[in-house]
Amino acid sequence: MKFKSIEWIGGLDGRLRILDQTKLPHEEVHFECDDVHTLWEAIKTLRIRGAPLIGVAASFGVFLGIRSSIALDFETFHNELRGTLRLLGSARPTAVNLFWALDRMQKVALSNRGQPIEKIKEALFKEAQRILSEDEKACKKIGQNGMSLINRGVTVLTICNTGGLATSAYGTALSVIYHAWENGTPLSVIVCETRPHFQGARLTCWELVKSGIPVTLICDSAAASVMSSGKVQCVITGADRIARNGDTANKVGTLMLAVLAEKFKIPFYVAAPVTTIDRNCPDGGSIPIEIREPDEILSPNGVRIAPEVEVYNPVFDVTPSHLISAIITENGILRPPFEEAIAMLSDSK
Amino acid sequence: MKFKSIEWIGGLDGRLRILDQTKLPHEEVHFECDDVHTLWEAIKTLRIRGAPLIGVAASFGVFLGIRSSIALDFETFHNELRGTLRLLGSARPTAVNLFWALDRMQKVALSNRGQPIEKIKEALFKEAQRILSEDEKACKKIGQNGMSLINRGVTVLTICNTGGLATSAYGTALSVIYHAWENGTPLSVIVCETRPHFQGARLTCWELVKSGIPVTLICDSAAASVMSSGKVQCVITGADRIARNGDTANKVGTLMLAVLAEKFKIPFYVAAPVTTIDRNCPDGGSIPIEIREPDEILSPNGVRIAPEVEVYNPVFDVTPSHLISAIITENGILRPPFEEAIAMLSDSK
Repeated sequence: MKFKSIEWIGGLDGRLRILDQTKLPHEEVHFECDDVHTLWEAIKTLRIRGAPLIGVAASFGVFLGIRSSIALDFETFHNELRGTLRLLGSARPTAVNLFWALDRMQKVALSNRGQPIEKIKEALFKEAQRILSEDEKACKKIGQNGMSLINRGVTVLTICNTGGLATSAYGTALSVIYHAWENGTPLSVIVCETRPHFQGARLTCWELVKSGIPVTLICDSAAASVMSSGKVQCVITGADRIARNGDTANKVGTLMLAVLAEKFKIPFYVAAPVTTIDRNCPDGGSIPIEIREPDEILSPNGVRIAPEVEVYNPVFDVTPSHLISAIITENGILRPPFEEAIAMLSDSK
Repeated sequence: MKFKSIEWIGGLDGRLRILDQTKLPHEEVHFECDDVHTLWEAIKTLRIRGAPLIGVAASFGVFLGIRSSIALDFETFHNELRGTLRLLGSARPTAVNLFWALDRMQKVALSNRGQPIEKIKEALFKEAQRILSEDEKACKKIGQNGMSLINRGVTVLTICNTGGLATSAYGTALSVIYHAWENGTPLSVIVCETRPHFQGARLTCWELVKSGIPVTLICDSAAASVMSSGKVQCVITGADRIARNGDTANKVGTLMLAVLAEKFKIPFYVAAPVTTIDRNCPDGGSIPIEIREPDEILSPNGVRIAPEVEVYNPVFDVTPSHLISAIITENGILRPPFEEAIAMLSDSK
């Protein structure tokens, strides 16, 4: 990876260094963050984004939130911790990795209940570092597992950003592409611009151009045009939450790609770490879908285009599992029926 | 209609008054046009747009192109006319109404070959006026014919602008909505913003808000979300060219809506005047698709978002006839098989 989306600088008294994704592709600006409120704001405003990366960032956020605690007993400390968890949990509702990371951090605190507070802080810091390094390893493995699905000379269609910017390194869907490419498989990528935030145009193009992988940018609405005319041989997307039956919430527009892939007989793959699977969620209908501000639609790039009008701005949609050819995880490639494949999966949760 | 997209002011020495659609919805600015080059530029740069309106504008353009001719014989005059036709024909390749109008104007010139040049000019002027008034009548009839397809309380999904701004009045798909609404049918409309030019957000929202019809704006990529969740009961779009077998070229994104409509069992209607049917075109594969500048994708609203990257920017896509439930024309509602329905259609061509 020719960039770092997230990095911890220093030891226990250090700070989180984050690549500001709202400034890309024009400027590669990092910002440093040593308090949980700034981090919450950065997640909320999409300066840091991508389901797995939100999870990693939030685990450091938990540490930042309690680092200065002067609590002397566990009860008081745990109350402060719960406040931090609530705050971070309110930043984005759909990506399950956020809640998974918060949950894991809380478990570490609870399992260290008997320790001195400073020891618990240290354990939380180490856990955040572990979550970061596990994410990096999982992403690498996703790429290695998935690259067998990429034939020589194919064009892969993708949406949003699922690369090194969406995770601590490599990415999920883009990790598959990176690994196939680095393994010598000639390929090219068509990227949907991904309204309303243009993550495809801004971030995925930036990453792929940086890596020298041939890439073509299209409007989201041109996906049907390229898919119907034989220009695409497979679709790979990321995921923000995968239900127990395989239904998958991802960036709005993903369901459109899945339906088009079915219609035009193109394989449709989802790539995600197992932390994206929410076993508490029986199906897509139970996944909460974040609805964002009308202004993202009314004023693309801050330039007002529409008159005063009602707006519906769901950030994600749910692709039913029957439209998914395979789910690529670090623990292997899952095939339908997903309910069974997921039940059999040994994960780290 | 609370606005006029196009209007001829004065007599033979008059000028065309056009609502500048690139300034909407912020400003309702008209510009006047008394030469063919300005008109060509206005069509090319989308200040005037919409397949039927391009046809109407071009027929006045033909008159403007030869109005000042000092030719004394038909041969010289016809050469000048041909230059004008070539120029106008180069403005936009996909909308067949443009070529239909140019053809009709040329036929009028040829059939008046024996007349004095000034008489031919007058005949061309009258023909352009006739084309305008026929378009208005056809659009009204499309609305009247189509409104039977709109049940009380439905939500209609549409894309791009197919209203009074795309024609001389009422529109095509929006004419159906306007007529149903004025006939007392409660309904609401969901509009796709329509990248890259945002005609849905800028123009259709402007028209519908002006008419008091409830309207909700979405990203193009959210169409699958609203269609899969039961928020839409029918889709109506316009058309830029309909082949003999019913295959329909329309704004990029239309094919996506048609495939989604099939998947989610929602009727998908096309509304267009019979002048949009190209009997010389056997099927969608023969329709030329305009590819526009990368900059429309790289810099939405003039704000650069993407790095240096390859772009594919087709303006239209082709919906195969098997995905179309009905084609609403001024001469009636066509039902599959469209090849037969179109062959039986008495049109004015």
